[in-house]
Amino acid sequence: MSDLLVNERTRVKRLPKRGAYDRATIDAILDEALICHVGFVVDGAPVVIPTIHWRDGDELYFHGSAASRMLRTLRDGVEACVTVTLLDGLVLARSAFHHSMNYRSVVVFGRARLVDEREEKLRALDRLVEHVVPGRSALVRGPNESELRQTLVLALPIAEASAKIRTGGPIDDAEDYALPVWAGVVPLTLTKGTPIKDETTGAATDSRGA
Amino acid sequence: MSDLLVNERTRVKRLPKRGAYDRATIDAILDEALICHVGFVVDGAPVVIPTIHWRDGDELYFHGSAASRMLRTLRDGVEACVTVTLLDGLVLARSAFHHSMNYRSVVVFGRARLVDEREEKLRALDRLVEHVVPGRSALVRGPNESELRQTLVLALPIAEASAKIRTGGPIDDAEDYALPVWAGVVPLTLTKGTPIKDETTGAATDSRGA
Repeated sequence: MSDLLVNERTRVKRLPKRGAYDRATIDAILDEALICHVGFVVDGAPVVIPTIHWRDGDELYFHGSAASRMLRTLRDGVEACVTVTLLDGLVLARSAFHHSMNYRSVVVFGRARLVDEREEKLRALDRLVEHVVPGRSALVRGPNESELRQTLVLALPIAEASAKIRTGGPIDDAEDYALPVWAGVVPLTLTKGTPIKDETTGAATDSRGA
Repeated sequence: MSDLLVNERTRVKRLPKRGAYDRATIDAILDEALICHVGFVVDGAPVVIPTIHWRDGDELYFHGSAASRMLRTLRDGVEACVTVTLLDGLVLARSAFHHSMNYRSVVVFGRARLVDEREEKLRALDRLVEHVVPGRSALVRGPNESELRQTLVLALPIAEASAKIRTGGPIDDAEDYALPVWAGVVPLTLTKGTPIKDETTGAATDSRGA
């Protein structure tokens, strides 16, 4: 793992006790999350787009259509900011002011590179499927040449990055603990429900549209 | 409700069928989500920060410490992009290429205004607690003068905004439906667990730190 750059951008300034800069912490958050928010600048204004991401070693990957404005913009190596947030709980305090949330977030700054070497791109797309459902990439039909052409894959170095984490219960002002109000944490978890099998057969696909 | 501005920024360009521009759809997503990602530009580079948001009528609110860089930057009326994403499911197709996710997202562009009139600010902070736990704002101790001074509240008009939504099962290529691989949707839900009561009493607070 590479050393992380802790600088004015990545250092957690508000509530610095919540900051973490070690790769194990950062990687665990990136690996658990199913979605990231990618920020970039268009005509001087910010744009933030949700997309799926995955990690391979020291790089954070994302992908999309070759027609995607986000991918085409980032392919050119402009500055990006990718943020991943896991919500862990509602923190309900005795005062409105001390309400909070438990969360684990990561911010990665940098410039992405285009992954266009064929073998590396295939590996990356396998890792994407593995990120979502481990073991599944070997079961499904892999990308054909047309699909590879239609897909852009970008990789952002996990070099200038930091995590910010809040855990635990509410911290109230001393005099508020006597208030007769329930306080504590409501845990939040992104839960998988019962899988819904797609019963569509080939003959029926035309009527479903694309 | 105001009419929404559909322009080059807000129009959903990739997969336009997934775009939605009506306020009822947009508001429902904003109201359900517990977190947003706020994008802004610092020294020409994008920054994306997760924060809690809430809606009151035609405006999207967020808040934070008066010392927060994000709040201080946005208070000056620079361009912001606020994105909210709800994950609804993993869409597992028979080919790697057609894997997808079901989601509902909203992007709001604009410039925020500082909410500094006392009554409006108090109302906004009540709405924040109500957004997280309806009915709770009347139970907890409201903000005192010091807390009000420490808190910045900003409001962004929900005027230049759009939603993007994917629902339903995988759409595979016709010839892939014969493949012997499970395909379908794994639903995802942000689930509340059993609340964990904070048993701390006033006497014990000192040892917990702040």
